[in-house]
Amino acid sequence: MRAPPDPAALAAALRRGDRRALARAITLVESTRAEDRAAAEKLLALLPSSGDSLRLGISGSPGVGKSTFIEAFGLTAIRDGRRVAVLAVDPTSQRSGGSILGDKTRMPELAKSDRAFVRPSPAGRTLGGVARRTRETILLAEAARFDLVIVETVGVGQSETAVADMTDLFLVLIAPGSGDELQGIKRGITELADLLIVNKADGDLEPAAKRAVADYRHALRLLRPRAKSEGEMVVAVSALKGRGIAELWRQVVELGAAGRRRRPAQARAALWQEIGEGLLEALKGDAHIAPHLAAVEARVTDGSLTPTAAAREVLEEFLARRR
Amino acid sequence: MRAPPDPAALAAALRRGDRRALARAITLVESTRAEDRAAAEKLLALLPSSGDSLRLGISGSPGVGKSTFIEAFGLTAIRDGRRVAVLAVDPTSQRSGGSILGDKTRMPELAKSDRAFVRPSPAGRTLGGVARRTRETILLAEAARFDLVIVETVGVGQSETAVADMTDLFLVLIAPGSGDELQGIKRGITELADLLIVNKADGDLEPAAKRAVADYRHALRLLRPRAKSEGEMVVAVSALKGRGIAELWRQVVELGAAGRRRRPAQARAALWQEIGEGLLEALKGDAHIAPHLAAVEARVTDGSLTPTAAAREVLEEFLARRR
Repeated sequence: MRAPPDPAALAAALRRGDRRALARAITLVESTRAEDRAAAEKLLALLPSSGDSLRLGISGSPGVGKSTFIEAFGLTAIRDGRRVAVLAVDPTSQRSGGSILGDKTRMPELAKSDRAFVRPSPAGRTLGGVARRTRETILLAEAARFDLVIVETVGVGQSETAVADMTDLFLVLIAPGSGDELQGIKRGITELADLLIVNKADGDLEPAAKRAVADYRHALRLLRPRAKSEGEMVVAVSALKGRGIAELWRQVVELGAAGRRRRPAQARAALWQEIGEGLLEALKGDAHIAPHLAAVEARVTDGSLTPTAAAREVLEEFLARRR
Repeated sequence: MRAPPDPAALAAALRRGDRRALARAITLVESTRAEDRAAAEKLLALLPSSGDSLRLGISGSPGVGKSTFIEAFGLTAIRDGRRVAVLAVDPTSQRSGGSILGDKTRMPELAKSDRAFVRPSPAGRTLGGVARRTRETILLAEAARFDLVIVETVGVGQSETAVADMTDLFLVLIAPGSGDELQGIKRGITELADLLIVNKADGDLEPAAKRAVADYRHALRLLRPRAKSEGEMVVAVSALKGRGIAELWRQVVELGAAGRRRRPAQARAALWQEIGEGLLEALKGDAHIAPHLAAVEARVTDGSLTPTAAAREVLEEFLARRR
């Protein structure tokens, strides 16, 4: 077994913007070994908190052109002086060390730039763990002087909510369909989106993309009338042709400055979520409680015991052994 | 201080369908006194689990005609042989024993019927407590042989999610606006709705109501394309004129039979939510932890401590004193 890297040396290398150090630090943060975990917390405690980065969440189903979009968008940001890190959250990936998301071969131009860092998604056991690691990875990237951090996710499970809860701005990519068959978006996701981006507004699909923008604007005005200018939040781009990307980048920078104000509330929510998860984990792992949980759940689901009575029983058993 | 009622006698009266007993039982369940709480749990343990009721959540902003709708709808159900209980969840109400929701004077015809029970909403301190009490109140009403339980809520805070999580079917009422100014619905609420009901489809508003149905159908097809027939879930009624109510009742009965299958999962989720809330409450009330929580939160929100490191510290402190 290798020893964990020295946190102080790693922190110093990160501050120089060293990309290899960043890769090593991310591996450390992703490790579940106890000694790695301890070193990771030491490392994180040594890092400066960087307030002037832009944290961007990007979601979209397979086939909407996410890689092409992130590459075009990231290169635009680099031309504007940014250093760009692309991270990926893929709770469905079971393979260690890589998955379809964040694969460097998907973004060859971006991966080649010395002002970019592309990190494939790690294997995820639980979404809670994935969220925690991704939050920490954002901090590492910012410490390594990446001032645009893109967190990419597929439209699966609760990962969008997790990513929206850790970024300043959440973009949802959609593709125009043909004719009446507009490619729909996942239930719940418009609620999270700060910007809805219709990609592939080029060639044969251009008219469909324009129609999609009008349709989504109308739908959003109807279903989300509270915000003043919901219509403005739907834009069309062609990542392939580079159309609309520079305008979008300017819009993202502007909105991101406001979105950054979410960070204190996000951090507080993350704290209580981690505490809550930790408490439930301790309870589920309690030697006196674990053997009975299945039976309690069965009685609750068949209606013979109310959730309240069952919760009281379990809680009393767990809390009684505190001193 | 009055003594709590005898659970066995109260349970027997409930089973006879006694409405006064139901009112007393609900008061017991709503009480926060420890001895009432103990009696309430005894009572709930004595009740039969009733599987053939229909639990209906109804939400809508003030002004959409909720009272008129529930009265017309409830009377239709009564004519179809049902016994109807109307409960209310209003987490904003701070007054004890009553609020604008569920007020009997709002539904005079329904309140008069001996096959109906209308209960005003209790004062709510926390939504968690409100949800628990409402879940238990549903069980009481079912034990008292009410086989249509309507849980009414205003479009405020998280109450819709709570109500949707404890009912078989969730209806959202909307009113047509004038011209282009369609009355919008709250962000997030279409995600919860099983049926969207455009009320006030009468008189001058009839054309606007028809337009609203078409617009919402289109918007839902676009934004929630996964479900096969989302368009079907938008209907127009006039509660005032009684138009469309009988058809809606038939649709609700049909959908409700499928919606009942959610109950085991709802009960399991309620169990874990109550356990989670109880654990957090114990932690926040811990004499060793409470004095430090504000400082920990401040360090997390200003970025000088990661949520993970802070959560670990707090959890270790709390769990270390278990034996």
